[in-house]
Amino acid sequence: MSVSDAGEFGLIARVVTRLGAPGPPAGPGDDAAVVPTPSGSVIATTDLLVEGRHFRFDWSSPYDVGRKAAAQSLADVAAMGGTPTALLIGLACPPSTPIEIVDGVADGLRDECALVGAVVVGGDMVSASEVCLAVTALGELAGRTPLTRAGARPSDVVVLAGTVGRSAAGLELLLAGVRDGPLVAAHRRPSPPYSAGPALAHAGASSLVDVSDGLLADLGHVAGASGVVFEVDVAALRALVPGVDVRHLLTGGEDHGLVGTLPAGVDPPPGVAVIGRTLPVGPAGGRPEVRLVGEGIPPDLRGPHRDGPAPDGTAGPARGWDHFSH
Amino acid sequence: MSVSDAGEFGLIARVVTRLGAPGPPAGPGDDAAVVPTPSGSVIATTDLLVEGRHFRFDWSSPYDVGRKAAAQSLADVAAMGGTPTALLIGLACPPSTPIEIVDGVADGLRDECALVGAVVVGGDMVSASEVCLAVTALGELAGRTPLTRAGARPSDVVVLAGTVGRSAAGLELLLAGVRDGPLVAAHRRPSPPYSAGPALAHAGASSLVDVSDGLLADLGHVAGASGVVFEVDVAALRALVPGVDVRHLLTGGEDHGLVGTLPAGVDPPPGVAVIGRTLPVGPAGGRPEVRLVGEGIPPDLRGPHRDGPAPDGTAGPARGWDHFSH
Repeated sequence: MSVSDAGEFGLIARVVTRLGAPGPPAGPGDDAAVVPTPSGSVIATTDLLVEGRHFRFDWSSPYDVGRKAAAQSLADVAAMGGTPTALLIGLACPPSTPIEIVDGVADGLRDECALVGAVVVGGDMVSASEVCLAVTALGELAGRTPLTRAGARPSDVVVLAGTVGRSAAGLELLLAGVRDGPLVAAHRRPSPPYSAGPALAHAGASSLVDVSDGLLADLGHVAGASGVVFEVDVAALRALVPGVDVRHLLTGGEDHGLVGTLPAGVDPPPGVAVIGRTLPVGPAGGRPEVRLVGEGIPPDLRGPHRDGPAPDGTAGPARGWDHFSH
Repeated sequence: MSVSDAGEFGLIARVVTRLGAPGPPAGPGDDAAVVPTPSGSVIATTDLLVEGRHFRFDWSSPYDVGRKAAAQSLADVAAMGGTPTALLIGLACPPSTPIEIVDGVADGLRDECALVGAVVVGGDMVSASEVCLAVTALGELAGRTPLTRAGARPSDVVVLAGTVGRSAAGLELLLAGVRDGPLVAAHRRPSPPYSAGPALAHAGASSLVDVSDGLLADLGHVAGASGVVFEVDVAALRALVPGVDVRHLLTGGEDHGLVGTLPAGVDPPPGVAVIGRTLPVGPAGGRPEVRLVGEGIPPDLRGPHRDGPAPDGTAGPARGWDHFSH
């Protein structure tokens, strides 16, 4: 059996079991870990990016790759309700790599960190056959409760900060040979709504995740972990992110928008929009799922969308990007 | 200009400059970063390990690779005087990788962490052409001052916890076709003296580093950063680590022994031995360096050994492993 036979989620489940999963507050499926310290806690998250799989230097400048690599991990900290403080960078690359690539990546990492007041505090550089960036972000909660995927409650509203689908639309354009325009720029350099994470925590949000696998997949994870049903208003999504195909809105990751839940009646913080509502799982036989309401939803996306395997053992449709099958 | 033209230390200096080096307490040359938090500080360090360059599955089992990968980063935390608390793991590997490799690495990471009471709290798994492990370790100081390479003072004694040279001796045997014995085992699975880090901090140590580039190179870094001269007693080293060639004792890394300085007259903690003394840099023209005293030192290692470029611009002999030239 190979890792591709196991698939990403199967592999993660297997490894987490062997490692001995850490307990609450945050579990293996959350955007980041919450590490207890003698006097509080630290948020920590690691991401790997491999050239040709997660970025391409013919599509993105080294500077943009640095910006995007930092953004990915900093957004994970924000998705826990945290404020990023520090980045650690591992860079593996062939000895023949032009120094301008390293310079550009470093500049991009630095400038994205500067947006949130974080700094690159350490790292490692080694020789390898391909370029691989390992980015670890640390952050702090300043006494706030971490926002996990398990806290959504019936009667909450569903909220979105930032955008969805624009990066995926930009990727489609890049694949078609287009090399500029706002959607291509959104793919090269996402703009996560960093401050919305702590703001939502402060406002009493009950759950929050970074949209990395697509809105349906990530909300499906939250529905499953929280034991609720989400009803998402596609018209509200369309109004928030105009000019993007509904398929990208529902399945595109990499914008690093933040989606979660807020008690009904609470005013959303600036830049945060209501896109749906939370319902209880129905009577016997009901299951956590994401339902879509609105016009113009492609038939294969109508749902309902559920997290993880269906009762018959087949994988549910709300399954995200599987790195090992691509 | 390529990264191999710049060399590891040149590349690190260049990148650190671009990133904007963090200030004290710990600088870019130290084993780990010290990240301030609202209520204390967190130690953090990242290492990358690439198959075929940092480990070989025909020489080491996946379990041993996991143990060694964790040990490398956990030892960096100990070298700051810290206690490791958490590991984050990035694993890049080809989709065809047998699942037993992932299982074994995970088990090894878990068991090495268990030695120090740390846990793997998070990670990422992605597809790549070669196996690359990114290991980030976090730790705490519990109010102790971090032990950097810049604190050694004249009249301190030089101390060593753990061993040096045994891993390098084991590597030489592996290269010669030997596949077992205690030195080969020491290469496959180092045993860093984790508890000596906090114990030395508690005892008032003035500097401490993990020996990763070899004793001469790493002590050379401390001499340079602290502005002192070290005099190392080779006979004391031989007595501490019997059966290992003096060249390996002086230049071998990867045992992850801890070397540093303690005020004269302070009793070394258990497992810590005195191997030399610290002197002031002499009058005008004197420079920080490492001197060796004792019998049987190979002529090319007699020194003195200095950190960084010599005044004529050539690299000094106390230069460590350069990943990008290998």
